[in-house]
Amino acid sequence: MSRTPVINVAVVGVGLVGSEFISQLLSIQSSPFQLVSLTSSSRTVFTPSSPIRSNDSWKDILAKSTEKPNFEILTKNLSSLVSSTSRVAVIDNTSSDEVAGHYPAWLEAGINVITPNKKAYSGELGLYERIIRASKATGAKFLNESTVGAGLPVISTLKELVATGDKIKKIEGVFSGTMSYIFNEFSTGSSDGPSFSSVVKVAREKGYTEPHPADDLNGFDVARKLTILSRTVSLSGSSVTTSLPPLQSFKSVQTASLIPPPLEGVPTGDEFISRLPEFDAEFDEKRKQASKNNKVLRFVGVVDAEKGEVKAALEEYPADHPFATSLGGSDNIIMFHTERYSPRPLIIQGAGAGAAVTAMGVLGDLLKLT
Amino acid sequence: MSRTPVINVAVVGVGLVGSEFISQLLSIQSSPFQLVSLTSSSRTVFTPSSPIRSNDSWKDILAKSTEKPNFEILTKNLSSLVSSTSRVAVIDNTSSDEVAGHYPAWLEAGINVITPNKKAYSGELGLYERIIRASKATGAKFLNESTVGAGLPVISTLKELVATGDKIKKIEGVFSGTMSYIFNEFSTGSSDGPSFSSVVKVAREKGYTEPHPADDLNGFDVARKLTILSRTVSLSGSSVTTSLPPLQSFKSVQTASLIPPPLEGVPTGDEFISRLPEFDAEFDEKRKQASKNNKVLRFVGVVDAEKGEVKAALEEYPADHPFATSLGGSDNIIMFHTERYSPRPLIIQGAGAGAAVTAMGVLGDLLKLT
Repeated sequence: MSRTPVINVAVVGVGLVGSEFISQLLSIQSSPFQLVSLTSSSRTVFTPSSPIRSNDSWKDILAKSTEKPNFEILTKNLSSLVSSTSRVAVIDNTSSDEVAGHYPAWLEAGINVITPNKKAYSGELGLYERIIRASKATGAKFLNESTVGAGLPVISTLKELVATGDKIKKIEGVFSGTMSYIFNEFSTGSSDGPSFSSVVKVAREKGYTEPHPADDLNGFDVARKLTILSRTVSLSGSSVTTSLPPLQSFKSVQTASLIPPPLEGVPTGDEFISRLPEFDAEFDEKRKQASKNNKVLRFVGVVDAEKGEVKAALEEYPADHPFATSLGGSDNIIMFHTERYSPRPLIIQGAGAGAAVTAMGVLGDLLKLT
Repeated sequence: MSRTPVINVAVVGVGLVGSEFISQLLSIQSSPFQLVSLTSSSRTVFTPSSPIRSNDSWKDILAKSTEKPNFEILTKNLSSLVSSTSRVAVIDNTSSDEVAGHYPAWLEAGINVITPNKKAYSGELGLYERIIRASKATGAKFLNESTVGAGLPVISTLKELVATGDKIKKIEGVFSGTMSYIFNEFSTGSSDGPSFSSVVKVAREKGYTEPHPADDLNGFDVARKLTILSRTVSLSGSSVTTSLPPLQSFKSVQTASLIPPPLEGVPTGDEFISRLPEFDAEFDEKRKQASKNNKVLRFVGVVDAEKGEVKAALEEYPADHPFATSLGGSDNIIMFHTERYSPRPLIIQGAGAGAAVTAMGVLGDLLKLT
């Protein structure tokens, strides 16, 4: 007994999260993992005979490679390592649609897929269904804890609720660290405060937003996360019925964008930021109205399994609600209202973005394979 | 591929949690589990050739058995089922020290052990160390998610933080549903309110306390949970150093009992409740003092890995702290302060007691074996 099969690990994407993941992976004591492949946007290495062991050398090894990335060859190489005593996991640390498109082929080859990349799980339903089918056929796993809430145990908790027969009534939360920061600063319950544009500007300067803030304010990041949660419930194969729609993609989520319509399509982040003050009065009015109701503004996502509704929007919450009292910084907070967790929900809160906690969620998934 | 080995399940303890567990287990669709044995305090069945499949019949099957519980025979019977295509898990739903004493033997025989029973993990260090050794030797797992926070993902989150190399600074929380209810009712920030004895009396009538409320007010339940958390950090084999002491047992935890010294040893719950009003003035004074500081009283547990301190005590928390604003009912709340979750902690909150959520935590552990 106690024979632990080796797990060969291939990392695709070696940016902030990828580098942090590699560092955490190589720090594990008596590790069952072998880092056998690295792929950046320009290079790739596949070195199963001499796995990478040192956090000091992997950048050099990759930099010296003359091989260009080729996912067909990677798939073939990794397939050759799958056996009864040797398993394989691809870690996709990119946010690439192209890489996501390879998940079915990897799973069909018996290769496990672990990722914080939301593209496959929030994109076209057909891809998601092919992923589920491939995983069922070979037993290879797809694990995506860090697609929602980074290292927070959101997906695993939801899966466990569903798998043990609990009935999900509603999931609601603040799912975007950027939106969390913006509204924690902008709306504190008081009728005035800093202007909306100034808060967004500071958030951008701190690196909390995308280079183009419209990529946060459009709400798509939240819509993608809601799609993943909704599908995790509705496509789980659980016997517990749900009235959730089979979302065709994250675009099926009712998403109330915060981009002022005249600023739709503004090409650069700089121009967007310079024009945003034109709309401060509108946001100020919303804040005043909320304050009059003794409420605060929060950009929330809701998966309502009873109403069959999935939506992302700016909403008012009472000043004594956890979304108002407990949130701070760029925290995420997620509430699961279920048959068992009723009338009081199960709540998970904490940093929902950042390389260290995202990489931790990815490594946590990898550890589930052991 | 996709070959799922059968997992044979033996349930020990068929009270509230045990019954609920069996019901949840038998509801799983295309289940990899076979329920092959049941043991109550007076009877046992072992029926691997005809596993129990219906939630309607198991009570009859057990009631008709003439076999008395015998853990040596059970161990032998279950050992005979361990093979490369068949695994075994014992689910201990008792709170028995005797049953806990068998964990090493089960693990040595390759039998996985899953339990909400705190006894083995918070009792003598020697037993805990034998459990770890046996698990390492055979690869059989011991899983105890529901020993802390019932179905809340507390132990799994802590294990993942540790396993991925995060550094635990401090874990603090309200770990007892009973204590949570009592102080959420007693101390709301106001300088007066219901008397302490009246709150305890109502809690007992609602079934939130043990029959003898001293069994809650002594703080031992919290001390046991802290012992489990502390050992999960300090005995994890992680490379991250900690200054936590190797607790000899839960009695090593600095525990500030809430039992008024003159009531120590009062034999019955009824007498205890009838005499508790003599001490209302003392608790009232604590509440007044806290209110003067704009604070509330909460019975909290702390594992301070930096100070190397583990303690359970009644403490004052600011009125805007999550322990004051966010708690309600008999919720548990647990904050993990770590290197990665800093300055803001990772927070988990929700019902931390009750048969449905406890059984869910146990079944969630069992699902981890698949």
